[in-house]
Amino acid sequence: MTDRHSYLERLRCPRCRETHDASRPHNLCACGSPLLAEYDLSQLGRALDPRELVSRPYELWRYHELLPVEDAGAEVRLGEPVTPLVPLAVLGADLDLPGLLLKDEGYLPTGTFKARGAAVGVSRVVELGIDRIAMPTNGNAGAAWAAYAARAGLPCLIVMPEDAPDITRRECVVTGADVFLVNGRINDAGQTVAKVVADGAAFDVSTLKEPYRLEGKKTLGLEIFEQLGWRAPDVIVYPAGGGVGLLGIWKAAKELQQLGWLTGSLPRMVAVQATGCAPLVRAFDAGAEVSEPWVGANTIAFGITVPKAIGDRLILEAVRESQGCAVAVDDPAILAAHAQIARREGRFICPEGAATLAAAQVLRASGWLGRTERVLLINTGTGLKYPGTVSADLRTLEPGQAITWPQGRDRA
Amino acid sequence: MTDRHSYLERLRCPRCRETHDASRPHNLCACGSPLLAEYDLSQLGRALDPRELVSRPYELWRYHELLPVEDAGAEVRLGEPVTPLVPLAVLGADLDLPGLLLKDEGYLPTGTFKARGAAVGVSRVVELGIDRIAMPTNGNAGAAWAAYAARAGLPCLIVMPEDAPDITRRECVVTGADVFLVNGRINDAGQTVAKVVADGAAFDVSTLKEPYRLEGKKTLGLEIFEQLGWRAPDVIVYPAGGGVGLLGIWKAAKELQQLGWLTGSLPRMVAVQATGCAPLVRAFDAGAEVSEPWVGANTIAFGITVPKAIGDRLILEAVRESQGCAVAVDDPAILAAHAQIARREGRFICPEGAATLAAAQVLRASGWLGRTERVLLINTGTGLKYPGTVSADLRTLEPGQAITWPQGRDRA
Repeated sequence: MTDRHSYLERLRCPRCRETHDASRPHNLCACGSPLLAEYDLSQLGRALDPRELVSRPYELWRYHELLPVEDAGAEVRLGEPVTPLVPLAVLGADLDLPGLLLKDEGYLPTGTFKARGAAVGVSRVVELGIDRIAMPTNGNAGAAWAAYAARAGLPCLIVMPEDAPDITRRECVVTGADVFLVNGRINDAGQTVAKVVADGAAFDVSTLKEPYRLEGKKTLGLEIFEQLGWRAPDVIVYPAGGGVGLLGIWKAAKELQQLGWLTGSLPRMVAVQATGCAPLVRAFDAGAEVSEPWVGANTIAFGITVPKAIGDRLILEAVRESQGCAVAVDDPAILAAHAQIARREGRFICPEGAATLAAAQVLRASGWLGRTERVLLINTGTGLKYPGTVSADLRTLEPGQAITWPQGRDRA
Repeated sequence: MTDRHSYLERLRCPRCRETHDASRPHNLCACGSPLLAEYDLSQLGRALDPRELVSRPYELWRYHELLPVEDAGAEVRLGEPVTPLVPLAVLGADLDLPGLLLKDEGYLPTGTFKARGAAVGVSRVVELGIDRIAMPTNGNAGAAWAAYAARAGLPCLIVMPEDAPDITRRECVVTGADVFLVNGRINDAGQTVAKVVADGAAFDVSTLKEPYRLEGKKTLGLEIFEQLGWRAPDVIVYPAGGGVGLLGIWKAAKELQQLGWLTGSLPRMVAVQATGCAPLVRAFDAGAEVSEPWVGANTIAFGITVPKAIGDRLILEAVRESQGCAVAVDDPAILAAHAQIARREGRFICPEGAATLAAAQVLRASGWLGRTERVLLINTGTGLKYPGTVSADLRTLEPGQAITWPQGRDRA
């Protein structure tokens, strides 16, 4: 039984090690690095036995001691179920990888894992007394933050590339955000937001420019490890754009290990990108600490079209520390994997999620993934937001018209 | 601790009272009525204390004793989380109805409550050894059955109106169903399916033409009553097309009452239709036992465009027995409610779900809903599947272009 709703202690810069007062709003450290939340894990470890979690509601907020929201009343909720972790038995057999698993994030508000960052991020924004927020987005993060901002009654500015999924604009508009498109990439959208922020007109909630979106994404890891009985899978395969989910999973693993809740080896973390925009893969292969901006970024996996991730240093560190790797897959491989998982497993997932299956196929073929390993793919969102990945030119019948089915079968 | 996975006993015709062997496939009763599954509730009541459910996975299958699948290994699963039941605090205050609640079904596979019927229906089809299925659909049911059929490796024929939501065709195609459109309404699609079935080419899984889809929908009620601590809300407001969800909730209430798990009054059941297709409302108002086919059906709430529901008699009985009512709302009211819940509560729901809010507004204004009543709205699916309900004509910026935000505020 814990006496504090949150065990948040401070913010710390992972680069210059400077600490910051978590009770006040912060963006980046003065040195330019994202800030990370630190918790009093030794105190929490004494106060809470993980078995106590069993009696809590089966939702994201069950991990509240490891989240930054200090007052339960400040939690902005749309209903955040723990998402399913399911075996991919058919594809696992195809790949000779019987321990293949999928964590499917399409079951959250707004249909993507971005809801995790928005739920916790917006809650903390409200708790800290911030009254207006602004962000650039490739679409899904904006939709999630707009929804939570609406629930909180918080004015919200969203800027996104013209090419972002159409449905995500509509989501932002319907929930009342102010939305602008930009004839460019997410970095261009970020420039427009930066000017608004520089004017003092809004608090910047861009990826990793405030520290609490990451804490929300951390729940993805907390759920995975609890669902597997406080053991890590051997490998986690993650589609990396801004990479916050990968960092969140890794942060969860480290905190749970420190708490003593997670025992055994930590997972090898795999960052998957598209060959059309693979700055992290290029940096990983080159042994570089940071990535170089990718020129001419282009892939159907729009959510991971991030030419230069602000957290690139942290992502590369996590991948290397975990003995993972970074892999690029091309659009045809992504589309083929997308079709396979739909037909063979009944799952209509997003292209970014399909990229993880394509990557697992490559890594299994090369032997990097062993036959007996437990390999967890992350599907970051529902395929419903990407109708263009499926063509459906169908035959139209007149009322009363008969057909023969299955095709080619003689009529009785 | 129960010794049987399912307590299914038999099928019974609610009209002629004939019983049927549940171990064999059945469609309608010889008298033309849908069949209902009956369970050995007295045995189950002795074997299981509802408090034991707490230790089970938080998913649809936790109620397996009250479901027809006899072998756990036959359950076809895509991951079926218990969906959130959330207070609508802001809209509740607007309506002077502080006990306003929403059960949000957009968090299921394929993004709608149709997944419940498909999960249980396909599982039972497989268990009974059926090797091909066919159905007409307004879109969402087809998408759900196609997904579960793919997971089960079961050939599936889907026929849907040309006007059905575009995304639903794509869902059926991507998961490998054979799909045809029809230049007509769901009843026309049903005729095409009926001919295929008459040829012996497929088992008919049309709404209520097999008995187990209803059992899946029953879990909607089971979840609601468990989430409210085995008490019913005063009123449940449901958007009725085929009406299977309403029947499922009502069947759950009756079974739980008989088990002694649900105490107190049963809920008043409200069937909501659109004024453009309101055969049940017309029959309810006329005191009729069945509905007449609606001519010229047309509404934006496409999922409830059912000119003549096969379960009309059962639906009207349930509504009357529960002391509920049937209400029609027009498209402008549906769209207004849709916008309100998005802006005020951050929820992007489907038009059918929005119709329940519009109906609650009407019923509150008339005094049919009392101020202190606990009123539960059912949102049957995610708004992501209905992009056309939101227009988003937005301004496009050039890279680097500055904006003033909030609008009208002087720049610093």
